[in-house]
Amino acid sequence: MASEKPSKQLGAGVVRTDRTLMDGRTIRYYDTQGQTRQAIDQRPAEEQPQIGEMRLDPLNNEWVVIAAHRQGRIFLPPKELNPLAPSRPGFLTEIPESDYEVVVFDNRSPSLRPPVGDFSAPNSPDFSSPSIPAAGKCEVVCYTSNYDSSFKDLSHQQIRTVLEAWRDRTAELSEIPYIQHIAPFENRGEEVGVTLNHPHGQIYAYSYLPPKTARMLEVATNHLSKTGRALLDDIVARELSDESRIVCKNEHWVAYVPYASRYPFEIHIAPLKSVPDLVALDEEQCMSFAPIAKEALQRLDGVFGVNMPYIASWHQAPVRQGRNSLRVHWQIQSIRRAPGKLKYLAGSESAFGAFMMDLKPEQSAQQLREVVL
Amino acid sequence: MASEKPSKQLGAGVVRTDRTLMDGRTIRYYDTQGQTRQAIDQRPAEEQPQIGEMRLDPLNNEWVVIAAHRQGRIFLPPKELNPLAPSRPGFLTEIPESDYEVVVFDNRSPSLRPPVGDFSAPNSPDFSSPSIPAAGKCEVVCYTSNYDSSFKDLSHQQIRTVLEAWRDRTAELSEIPYIQHIAPFENRGEEVGVTLNHPHGQIYAYSYLPPKTARMLEVATNHLSKTGRALLDDIVARELSDESRIVCKNEHWVAYVPYASRYPFEIHIAPLKSVPDLVALDEEQCMSFAPIAKEALQRLDGVFGVNMPYIASWHQAPVRQGRNSLRVHWQIQSIRRAPGKLKYLAGSESAFGAFMMDLKPEQSAQQLREVVL
Repeated sequence: MASEKPSKQLGAGVVRTDRTLMDGRTIRYYDTQGQTRQAIDQRPAEEQPQIGEMRLDPLNNEWVVIAAHRQGRIFLPPKELNPLAPSRPGFLTEIPESDYEVVVFDNRSPSLRPPVGDFSAPNSPDFSSPSIPAAGKCEVVCYTSNYDSSFKDLSHQQIRTVLEAWRDRTAELSEIPYIQHIAPFENRGEEVGVTLNHPHGQIYAYSYLPPKTARMLEVATNHLSKTGRALLDDIVARELSDESRIVCKNEHWVAYVPYASRYPFEIHIAPLKSVPDLVALDEEQCMSFAPIAKEALQRLDGVFGVNMPYIASWHQAPVRQGRNSLRVHWQIQSIRRAPGKLKYLAGSESAFGAFMMDLKPEQSAQQLREVVL
Repeated sequence: MASEKPSKQLGAGVVRTDRTLMDGRTIRYYDTQGQTRQAIDQRPAEEQPQIGEMRLDPLNNEWVVIAAHRQGRIFLPPKELNPLAPSRPGFLTEIPESDYEVVVFDNRSPSLRPPVGDFSAPNSPDFSSPSIPAAGKCEVVCYTSNYDSSFKDLSHQQIRTVLEAWRDRTAELSEIPYIQHIAPFENRGEEVGVTLNHPHGQIYAYSYLPPKTARMLEVATNHLSKTGRALLDDIVARELSDESRIVCKNEHWVAYVPYASRYPFEIHIAPLKSVPDLVALDEEQCMSFAPIAKEALQRLDGVFGVNMPYIASWHQAPVRQGRNSLRVHWQIQSIRRAPGKLKYLAGSESAFGAFMMDLKPEQSAQQLREVVL
């Protein structure tokens, strides 16, 4: 049962076409070649479990999502059983079409689901407000139909299409009343727990401020009221002035190993003119994102000549607050510290949040700069 | 060059004797059999690097320790090269004696070191206070001289001796003016990054409040001022009343899977009568800790019939604040969620601090209770 929604024109000639999957989930095709998207999901309809539960961890007043039905989800299937491949005769996947450029579809086993009826998470939860529905949205972003590719292997046009998809999703999800924060991210590599090797990312749209975002908001708000400036502007100014941690830059973006990086190879990529979120990037910023993203990720893989496991996350301003204090940047953290060694979060980091870094950020930046592309 | 310090009598017949290692570090023997500790460290003296640096991560105002000299430290040596074994002819280790019960010595490659001269970390660091010395102390606690043992295999007397060592170190480190927080913890298993398989833990004495402790302090302080009660008392009361998450208990302690646990197998162990830190435990609480600690850890290893990787951490009140609001408990977090599967901290947890749990705490508690010991 496919819906008949009109296509939507986005930036850089990208057109979005929506279709409905067998269980009512939406899949969005982001295309640049005038494709028609009419393939119907032939799989038998599947019942979706009910919305899960968020419980308050009272020791630190943070929500923990209990997503108990996800234990059985698919785990590192071989390439020929890849559920993110286009469908082919005899093998039906999450994407009914026989080819695609970029797609974003609702996650089949989401940790967060749309709530029933009106919902808003309590502003100041405490011990007396222990459990609420795990409201939110989880989406999957397939960067390409090519299983053997990776973000850094995409063409500039492909990266631009992914960027338009992120921007479109951020804009649309921002309009949902119960959504507080939108977080596009990518886990890459089995070392960070990836369960599907196909190049893809995810978007989590939270109905509450995630703890680290809440903390960043508090710090940036204080900085703004004390100095009148957005914190990220001061951070980027220091990186440009110090120079020693810069990995690469272009006319509109800079990539640097942060002054107090927490992982041996951590790269932040920020626009030189700061804006609250991906939607607010102007055309020139959008145009020049692909080259710096590609170069930074190629340098990362070049350090040891192996694919680096990483977590790449977009930090944006929350949907409804801190729009002037929190500014968008892309944070790429790799847990590999040497060819055979990973950085683990052990007692100090995991239980106390106190990070110990084994590599000077300046040395890490130098290694990244010295990679021959 | 060994120092001649007198022995010190602790609880439960434990006697502490201090000696000095080749590079000036202290080793403390905790004994119950009237041993004399006179062995001299025969290794050539080794120069210690200078104190490292802590940098402020400006995005969240948190210190990150840059311990760049630690990259080359020893990594999973075979049993016959175990540096935590007692010394033997032809193989000199960190412990000069030919046998020991429990020892605590200053870490050879510490992330945190005693500062030169007066030092105190700034109370409210911000973007304008970017770097300070990485002041603090890191100690290693060997639980037994038996490489093939584990905390859960120790006898009740051995666990009591370890507890006395933790209490003694907490008391002594609390008297150092620049120390703000004392954190005994154990990383167990290569899956959490253990670099030495000998059964041992560590003690980090921080010169600042670690971020998670600072957060817990803030929440517990609010709870105390709102309700007049220590937060942990209310948490333990709920666990006792709900019953469904209790793993085991005795007259003075209870072990439970917390209401909003973050890991598939997480156990908190708290005294029924709460106290700020390990030093404040009374004799009855000390006596009855070993049985519950052993049982909880045996149940943990029993769930899948394999040694579980875990991080076990003592959360205590900070040395100089929150003594009435933060109360001591032991937190054991395992990252194994199924026999061949680990729980990874991916994008949502790692970049946004938003935890997604795949197993209901009540189910986890039931699995732990059903283990046949």
